[in-house]
This record gives sequence, C-alpha cells and structure tokens, in this order.
Amino acid sequence: MAHTGTHSQPVRACLLLVVVSVWVQQVDGVWPLPQQLDQSADRNSLSPQRFSFTYGRDSAAQTGCSVLDAAFKRYFSIIFPDFTKGSGLLMSENESIRYTSSFSQLVYQDDYGSYFINKTEIVDFPRFAFRGLLLDTSRHYLPLHAILKTLDAMAYSKFNVFHWHIVDDPSFPYQSRTFPDLSNKGAFHPFTHVYTQSDVMRVIEHARMRGIRVIPEFDSPGHTQSWGKGQPNLLTPCYKGDVPSGSFGPVDPTVDTTYKFMESLLKEVKFVFPDSYVHLGGDEVSFACWQSNPNVRTFMEKMGFGKDFTKLESFYMESIMNMTAALNRTSIVWQDVFDYHERIPQDTVLEIWKGETYQAELSRMTKAGHRVLLSAPWYINHISYGQDWRNSYAVQPQNFSGTEEQKKLVIGGEVAMWGEYVDATNLNPRLWPRACAAAERLWSDEEKTLNADLAFPRLEKFRCELLRRGIQAEPLFVGHCKHEYDGL
Amino acid sequence: MAHTGTHSQPVRACLLLVVVSVWVQQVDGVWPLPQQLDQSADRNSLSPQRFSFTYGRDSAAQTGCSVLDAAFKRYFSIIFPDFTKGSGLLMSENESIRYTSSFSQLVYQDDYGSYFINKTEIVDFPRFAFRGLLLDTSRHYLPLHAILKTLDAMAYSKFNVFHWHIVDDPSFPYQSRTFPDLSNKGAFHPFTHVYTQSDVMRVIEHARMRGIRVIPEFDSPGHTQSWGKGQPNLLTPCYKGDVPSGSFGPVDPTVDTTYKFMESLLKEVKFVFPDSYVHLGGDEVSFACWQSNPNVRTFMEKMGFGKDFTKLESFYMESIMNMTAALNRTSIVWQDVFDYHERIPQDTVLEIWKGETYQAELSRMTKAGHRVLLSAPWYINHISYGQDWRNSYAVQPQNFSGTEEQKKLVIGGEVAMWGEYVDATNLNPRLWPRACAAAERLWSDEEKTLNADLAFPRLEKFRCELLRRGIQAEPLFVGHCKHEYDGL
Repeated sequence: MAHTGTHSQPVRACLLLVVVSVWVQQVDGVWPLPQQLDQSADRNSLSPQRFSFTYGRDSAAQTGCSVLDAAFKRYFSIIFPDFTKGSGLLMSENESIRYTSSFSQLVYQDDYGSYFINKTEIVDFPRFAFRGLLLDTSRHYLPLHAILKTLDAMAYSKFNVFHWHIVDDPSFPYQSRTFPDLSNKGAFHPFTHVYTQSDVMRVIEHARMRGIRVIPEFDSPGHTQSWGKGQPNLLTPCYKGDVPSGSFGPVDPTVDTTYKFMESLLKEVKFVFPDSYVHLGGDEVSFACWQSNPNVRTFMEKMGFGKDFTKLESFYMESIMNMTAALNRTSIVWQDVFDYHERIPQDTVLEIWKGETYQAELSRMTKAGHRVLLSAPWYINHISYGQDWRNSYAVQPQNFSGTEEQKKLVIGGEVAMWGEYVDATNLNPRLWPRACAAAERLWSDEEKTLNADLAFPRLEKFRCELLRRGIQAEPLFVGHCKHEYDGL
Repeated sequence: MAHTGTHSQPVRACLLLVVVSVWVQQVDGVWPLPQQLDQSADRNSLSPQRFSFTYGRDSAAQTGCSVLDAAFKRYFSIIFPDFTKGSGLLMSENESIRYTSSFSQLVYQDDYGSYFINKTEIVDFPRFAFRGLLLDTSRHYLPLHAILKTLDAMAYSKFNVFHWHIVDDPSFPYQSRTFPDLSNKGAFHPFTHVYTQSDVMRVIEHARMRGIRVIPEFDSPGHTQSWGKGQPNLLTPCYKGDVPSGSFGPVDPTVDTTYKFMESLLKEVKFVFPDSYVHLGGDEVSFACWQSNPNVRTFMEKMGFGKDFTKLESFYMESIMNMTAALNRTSIVWQDVFDYHERIPQDTVLEIWKGETYQAELSRMTKAGHRVLLSAPWYINHISYGQDWRNSYAVQPQNFSGTEEQKKLVIGGEVAMWGEYVDATNLNPRLWPRACAAAERLWSDEEKTLNADLAFPRLEKFRCELLRRGIQAEPLFVGHCKHEYDGL
C-alpha cells in the first residue's frame, strides 16, 4: 500500500513509507494532510513507560536503521514532553506503531497531563518527490544554529530538500579547503561569518538524520562578485572605453584558468556534499560588462557567436554542466539557462523562478522532456500584510497545458527565502508557518486540500505544535496557543 | 540652551536635557538625529576605569535623581560591554559628560578593543513632547518580558509613551482587582495569559526608569466582546426579530449598571496607572446591535435621539469622559468620537487613525482647538516587502492647512503595532528598526531629516547597535553587523 517518490540517496529509504495503524485521538488533523486518514472516536490512553515504536513487517526499513532509530528517540521526546526518559523504554511492544512523523501530531494530553490517542489508520506517501526549501546565506550570514533549527522545522513539515544558496554577490561564507581565500577575502568576516568544513558536515548530518537532502548552489557565471575578491582573474574586468573601469562583471568565460578553477571547486563540492544533485545557478547574467571587454569581444568573434552573448553564456554553462556530469552529479539550473538555449543535457533539472509566466514555462520545459522544479510562486521572502500563506496554498503545480507524461516531469518545488531582508532576527517567523502551505501542496492530495478555509484550523493547530517544539512560528490570526513561544 | 517638551510627570524632569560637550568619535551619526551635533576629528581614548557621568550645572536634574542614576548604570554597561564592573567607577570625574542617551551611540571600539570617542558638541531636545508606541495585548497575549524588551528598545529610540492597548474584543488579560472575573473569564487563559497587578507595576516601573510614560487604553463601548464574558449585563443583547439572538454588541449605554461598572473600573485604572492620561477608545462602534434591541430603541425615543445612533454613542462617551475628568485624568479618544460629535471637552486629546484623509482631519481637529496625536500613517503592523520604513519616514505631521497655532496643537504621534498577526514570535523584528523611522520624525528637526537615502546608513548603524544591545531588530538590506543577533 505504500507509494513512494524517487530518491537518489539510499539512506532515505529508511523513511519511505508505511501504513500506520494506531490508537489515536479525534484531533483536528495532521499537517501536511496524509493521503488517507481515518479516525475513530475510540480513545485509548498512552503510557510513556509502555510505549514503543516498531518497524512494520512490510516496511522497506528494518531494525537497525540508524536514521529511523534516531528519529524514534527524537519523536519520543516530542510526543511525551513531560516524561523523563529512562533506558529501555523504546523496546517494549505494547502498541504497534509504524510511522513517526504524522503520528507525533496525533497524541494529545488532557487537562490532567495524561496522554491519549484515538484509533487512526493512515496510508501516506508524498505527491512530489522533491520538496525543497532554499536559504540564502550570502546576502546575510545565517548562524549555524539558525540553519539547524530550520532543518528541524522542515522535517516537521515533511520538506526533504535543503537547497543551500550558500554564496552569491554579497559574500562567500563557504570556507573552501582548495581555495581558502574565497572566504578569507569574500566573506563578511573570515572567522565569524563563514561555514567551516565542520559546520557544513554538521548541517549535512543533521539534515540526513531528518530525511533531508542538502543540495548546494554555486551560482555562476553571474552572482559572483564576492568570488572575485579571493580569486584574482576569475571575473571579467569591465571596461570604460579602452581602459578597465576597475569594476568586474560575471565570471570570465574566455580564459582557461576559469574552467580549471571551476573544475577544482566542483570536485571539492562533490567531495563535501554527498547528494547526487548540485545546483549550478545560471540566472540573471548581465551582458554589459562582457560587451565592454575587448578580450571577450575577440573571443566572441573567434567562436562565431556574433553579437549574441546568450551563446557565450550557453558555452560557459555547457562546460560547467559537462564537468558536473563527469563528476557523476546531476545539474540543476535556473530557468534562464533553458530560456536562452534549449539544447541542454536531457537529465538537467530546470528550476522556474520567474513569476509571471510560470505555467507557460512548465509547458515548454516539460515538452522539451526536462524534469522541472517550481519555485516562482513560492518566493516567500516576498511578504505582504495578512494571510499570504493562502497565495502559496492556491498554487497548482500541475495545472498547465501538457500531457500526462509532461505532468510527471514536475518532480516538485521549492520554497525560497531570499536574504535581502532576512537574517537570524526574522528568519524563523517569516518561514513558519508560511512555508507550510507549500509543504502541504507538495505532499498532499491536491483534490483534498484545495480549500484554504478548511485548511485554516488545521494549520493553526500545526502552528501551535511548531511553537511547542520550539519553532518561532508566527501567528496566522488572532488567538493563542496553549504553549506560547517563550524564547525571547 | 535646553528646550523641552511639556510633560506631566515630575520624574521625567530628570531626563530633560541639556548640552553635551564630550570627546567623541567621527561616527556615522546618532539616531534619532540630535538637533545640533558637531563632531571634530580629534579622537580621545576612553578608559572604563576612569569614566564617569556627571550632572550638568545647568541641568534640571541634580545629583540624587534616581532615574538618572539608574540610567548611568545601565548605559555604562552598554558603552563598555566588555568591562567587568567594579565599585566606585561612576564616581570619578575625568570626563565631563552630561547626557547618556545619544552619547552611548558615539563611543566605539577599535579592532584591539580600546574605547574611543571624538570631541562632539550636542544640543538636543525633542520636536514633539508625545512620542508613543502602541502594543496590542488582546488579539495576542504578549508575555511580560516581550513588553519589557520593547520598553528597552523604545528608550534607545527616544520614544517616551507606551500606549498599552491592553484589552479588546478577543481577550481581557488585565487582571482587575475590582472585577477579577473580567480576566478569569475573558482572558485567553486565566493564569498563563493575564497581567497581574504585579506585572502591571513592573511594566510601569521599568518604563519610568527609562523616561517612558504608560498610558493604558480601556476601549469602549465597542471592542468589548471579551468584557462581556466576566461582566454579565454589560453588553447589549442583540435581537433577531423579537427575541435575543444570543450574541452581544457594544456596551449597553442605556442602563445605570453600565455607568456604575465603568466608574469603578476607571477608579481602579486611576489607582493602578499613575499617568495623568487615560485612553478611552471610542472607535468603530457598530450600530446594528443597538438598533436591533427594543430597550435601546425605547431609550433613544425617550432621549429624543431619533434614529441617530451617533447621538447615543456621543451620550455614552460624554459620560465616560466626564467620569475621567472627575478623576483628574485627561482623556485621549480615537478620532471617531470627534467625527461624530464635535462638541467634546476641550482638553480631550484626539488620536487620528484613519489613513486616507489624515491631513484634512488634522486641520479640522486643530481648528476646533483640540490637541492631536497622529497615528494613521504609522500603523506599522501593516507590512510590505522591502524598505517600508521609508513610508513612515516621509510623514510630515505638521504639513496640513492651518495656522501656526494649529500646528502647535499636534503634540506628537504614535507608532501602532496592532496584534492581528503579531505575538512574541515576531513582535521585535517587526517593530525594530521599522519604528525608528517615526521615532526620528517625532524627535528630530524635519528639515535636517527629510532625505531617507541620507538617513539610511545612519539607521543601518543604529540597527546594528540595537542588535548589540540585544534587540532582535531585522535587517534593512543586504549586509552584516559586527555583533549579529545570537538569541535563537
């Protein structure tokens, strides 16, 4: 009865599905909504002493799966927050429980502190295999604990990909072992505003234990101003007339040193980030600086590109994507790369970020046979007054003109929290519970979750649950939670 | 050389200022901008051991002013955060310093941790006497520490009035000694979501020590749904045809018990809140329920009000304002009270909250001789993407058609953070530094502070200073602070 998305990492097999058949309460519901959930009014009390998680007989995961065992331990504390843990509690088998994640939302306490659960049958699986969240650590540095906290909340909402937009124009906080000057000179501060190798490993491990993949983005050839500080001759010198102006443009795609550098960097990235995907960016390349530079113009002539700088960009991106392929990694790129030149490797995943015409873009990309990620309608760094989660909730990722085969090429989507106006001071309340709307759209049956008014009380309850778990999730409207945020 | 606004509380006299003549750094500036600030390039080092604050000879405050002495102690820690305090440090007299508040922004550390200050002369005084900030603790409960933290940040920004919109429709968290059922039945929770008498005292004292007045608002006759839970027969029963519908409308202005209750409540409020002002609300009264009620209709006939329910509202508000006057308190009311019936006691302060036409309203109210508070353009609970502080900054409170005498009747304004979408999870980053824009408009010379682009780097620096002082102030744009927020 389990249906699963396709995943490339073996460890995630541990968390792939299952049937839950337990005694659960008449609760307002679970977020994201499971594919099937049948609750009875029968209420049974739960004893923390006699409680256990057990592996289902038909489950892909079997006893000894370290990720699931660690999850059992974490969720035990979440389900029974008042209970002082002792040893051996997880080993008894008085209840038969096969799935942690939605389950933790079904246990409740009465006014006397007793734990209850109503009989509930859940059949569940994700609608889309790729349910991502992007954090931008270049426009503002996010301290490690802010990232780890975000991963916790992502797991509660069933996100499974952390898209780490780790570097960009303003700063280069990734501490490279091959090119230490990139962060020494390109970070906001070489010690306080960097991610060391050990920091990165900690993020990856924290994510792995929560069934979350970490896909790094090293965006080029644009969005690389900070790279230039620690890597001389990487960026294109811009010219004013016949002389260099002193400012720099995108990566210089005309010199061999650029490709040697990129190859070394991508080799390191492959070594550090185990995920089989890597995001190569490719968005918003401005041609003005290339155009101003006499060497670039000479190169254009030599290559027969005429005046068409999209061909130069294409040439660069193809080289980078080929390097990535040679390293056995699958490339993800922003839609620009497809928009300028549709002939790109078939297995490249395209990500849509331009808001106005994303449905037409979905049609075109899938018609060309590419797998697609949708992010455009989920740029939730864009805030507005009131319940703007409803906009995210109304998105229908497969509502575009195309065949059934095309629809299947939409492998998921991403919530993006770009960092122009976001750092550790406001990250969490801007993310949560606003990101939960997309989380449900990516996980649940669309037919059963079209009505935002019906979803509202369930999301309100989930937001209170996030508070109880220590996530600084902002309110959806007037009211209160039993456990308010107390982290000031 | 000191010019001061008018204040009603004697304690504030301690903080009224003064001429500062100290050695200070070439810093980017101070927020809000002082009326006069002249910096020299001369840099002098500051020794925490030999540093002291001293009272100026011409200052209204003199040695022994407890508020100022406490401020000296607090600001010493802010100016020298790395210095372990010993005894007697404040008593030496090697520097002559007469003003704490702007001063603390002028001291800086070099990369080796030494403290410096450049010679600076400051002459300062507030443009408006009333610089308020409204928090709404009814739509969401705000824990005590969130309020205290807000008071800290208010003091740093030179706000001097905390408008405590303490109760409203959704909940009644004020624990009344006279009517304990109001919070027992009207709060979100009678123990965890209330302000005890001791909580209120703590807020008032914390505010007093920072030169901030606390003006409570007990808004009626509308916005009182939560009051009805603990005070039977206070609200008007609504009718459907000839029978009560079971729901309730505004306070019932037709029965004696209402006025007896309000008088007792206002007596308690006078006792608990020492400020000479009290806010009586009076906004957004819906007439539908009154109209449905046969007793109200009979009362209208008896009083000769015809079908004009504004006369009934007016009758009620006049009674309440008379009670307040009899208690030697000055009333503040929302603009509705003036809009419906211009004949109200001359010393009543009117507060403008309707956004579209606030300039015309300023003209009308001041022409009628009333003192006015402007809040309409500073409803900063309304958020939008990007640098929306610029909207607040562009407000010109005296830019309306009227005489010089009329302009003087604008005694100040208020930033309002209504609570529909705000609780402790997101209060601080939504308030700060966005509220600072209005703080400067209310404090500084308008001519010198019209250009938001020029103000931007100074505000950015002040925002970093707020972070360093533990205020969770969100970023204004891409970048970083030396001391980032680390409170997660």
